[in-house]
Amino acid sequence: MQLLGCDVAALNTVHFSNHTGYRQFKGTRSTAQEISDLYQGLCQSHLTDFDVMLSGYAPVLQHARPSQTLAHFFGVCSTLSLLNSPLTVNQPTVLDPVMGDQGRLYVNEDVVPAYKKIIHHADLILPNQFEAEVLSGIKITSLSTLAEAITAIHTTYSVPHVIITSVRISQFSSSPETTTDNLTVIGSTIKSDGSPRLFRVDVPALDCFFSGTGDMFAALTVARLREAVFAADSTLRSTKSWATVKVLASMHSVLERTLEARDVELRATASAEKTEPGLSEGEKQKREYLRRTKAAEVRVVRNARFLREPDVEFQAREWKKEDLPAGLQ
Amino acid sequence: MQLLGCDVAALNTVHFSNHTGYRQFKGTRSTAQEISDLYQGLCQSHLTDFDVMLSGYAPVLQHARPSQTLAHFFGVCSTLSLLNSPLTVNQPTVLDPVMGDQGRLYVNEDVVPAYKKIIHHADLILPNQFEAEVLSGIKITSLSTLAEAITAIHTTYSVPHVIITSVRISQFSSSPETTTDNLTVIGSTIKSDGSPRLFRVDVPALDCFFSGTGDMFAALTVARLREAVFAADSTLRSTKSWATVKVLASMHSVLERTLEARDVELRATASAEKTEPGLSEGEKQKREYLRRTKAAEVRVVRNARFLREPDVEFQAREWKKEDLPAGLQ
Repeated sequence: MQLLGCDVAALNTVHFSNHTGYRQFKGTRSTAQEISDLYQGLCQSHLTDFDVMLSGYAPVLQHARPSQTLAHFFGVCSTLSLLNSPLTVNQPTVLDPVMGDQGRLYVNEDVVPAYKKIIHHADLILPNQFEAEVLSGIKITSLSTLAEAITAIHTTYSVPHVIITSVRISQFSSSPETTTDNLTVIGSTIKSDGSPRLFRVDVPALDCFFSGTGDMFAALTVARLREAVFAADSTLRSTKSWATVKVLASMHSVLERTLEARDVELRATASAEKTEPGLSEGEKQKREYLRRTKAAEVRVVRNARFLREPDVEFQAREWKKEDLPAGLQ
Repeated sequence: MQLLGCDVAALNTVHFSNHTGYRQFKGTRSTAQEISDLYQGLCQSHLTDFDVMLSGYAPVLQHARPSQTLAHFFGVCSTLSLLNSPLTVNQPTVLDPVMGDQGRLYVNEDVVPAYKKIIHHADLILPNQFEAEVLSGIKITSLSTLAEAITAIHTTYSVPHVIITSVRISQFSSSPETTTDNLTVIGSTIKSDGSPRLFRVDVPALDCFFSGTGDMFAALTVARLREAVFAADSTLRSTKSWATVKVLASMHSVLERTLEARDVELRATASAEKTEPGLSEGEKQKREYLRRTKAAEVRVVRNARFLREPDVEFQAREWKKEDLPAGLQ
């Protein structure tokens, strides 16, 4: 976000030594009271002239109910939307309902109902496929169920804009696209009749598990939306697909270069690994997992130029009527 | 640092809502144990392949002695210097002995002896004029006492490189330079005979109090030194004045633009201030102080290009023998 010109005030919900993809970390979680105090600190010195609010990872708390954190978070959020700002009219509140991925929750179960309660405060939410299933209660196994889930999210939570950040349409059994391994991003804006206006962007999938790509998508989306709104005085709706295309181009370039750097690092560290003496089989496996996780760390900073000026182009396509199940056409 | 291509792992010593220049803030201080835990977290997942260690603000702790924080900090530091790294031979440890400014300590008094105990671990320290006085025990009122203080710091703490980040030579009563209001940065490297090899860079002073310029100087210096060492495989000594010149050029450009933006913001917010009803005189003064402090916030991110490519040039000059007091020539 800073690389795209945003001044950012971060209210950290955790203070961890590393991301949880390593399966081990040390550090502390902020309590709901601590987050609230930080925001009160900004308020008392009149430092809350923000344009956009973006929420992210808010995991289980040790000493407070998680719903309390989220309530405080959106206490912050509601206050923000009342403030004067060049974006007052279209001031977006962007919520990334971080709950899990690939069929698995990685926050406390209490976080789910907490999100369900506060999503109506958001202008745009950014669930992944699993989170969209959790929010809609609909298992996404086809284009029909995907469209149903999006419609359900719009109507259940009165949220006008949704971007589902990664769907593997090629894994749907009924899909004609089983040969290409793409990740598809689906954007949707609710129409006055309650039906969704949809667009999709397809991006080639890369064969690696990266941590933090959801955060990267959310951060870049906020920065690009802000840029578009400031530049053209246009609305969130008309700039969303433009922003998404830019975001995905940046991410694809950064992740491609990360893959190259990962391979270099894996080759460079392989020999060192082999000579490490006296490790049990379990220790060796753990060491290898840590080595591979570190090698796949997304190279954001050294690929900064691709955040500013991505060198690939993807296209946003309207998701056509015939793609939708009969009831939604 | 990120804008200059460094991947940075931050161990936060405080979690504050805003910098302390506002004279009010909310938030928490990390305990020594928390900092140590975070570093242990990095260690256990083999994430400690850093090139450089930079220490900064470590204020009084509520629940631990401050010396304990610094000890933990330099436990981290000593461990780092034992690690394999492309920079092993010249791996710099840079210490910004943050204690105070303009005659006033802004950390607990216990922090002073703690710094004095651990400075010998550092390759380069970055005190301001006041901190150099505290470390050397010599009040800097002239070019002679300045040179004496630097010599004392080299010999007392066995620290090979010192940069004094801001000296107002024009305020020295004996100075012939009373007409120009410059800030002078003095760099020094200890020679084999114990005397200092000195350089100086003069920069026009800007008429505004900025918060965070010490941190900015330290961060840019580390990034530029790293860049120079990687590029030329040269030593810390030969690249220090080059790095300092680049750092000061970036800072001057960013601060000049900050001044312009400050003036715009002060004009824009002046009318809003006047119409705020029902404030007492004391409240009005406080509100005005907060308004001016916020307006002077350093615009780092939106002036990113000046960090990468500063557009002014300052010169490093050797500080000549005749500038030094007789005993130091």
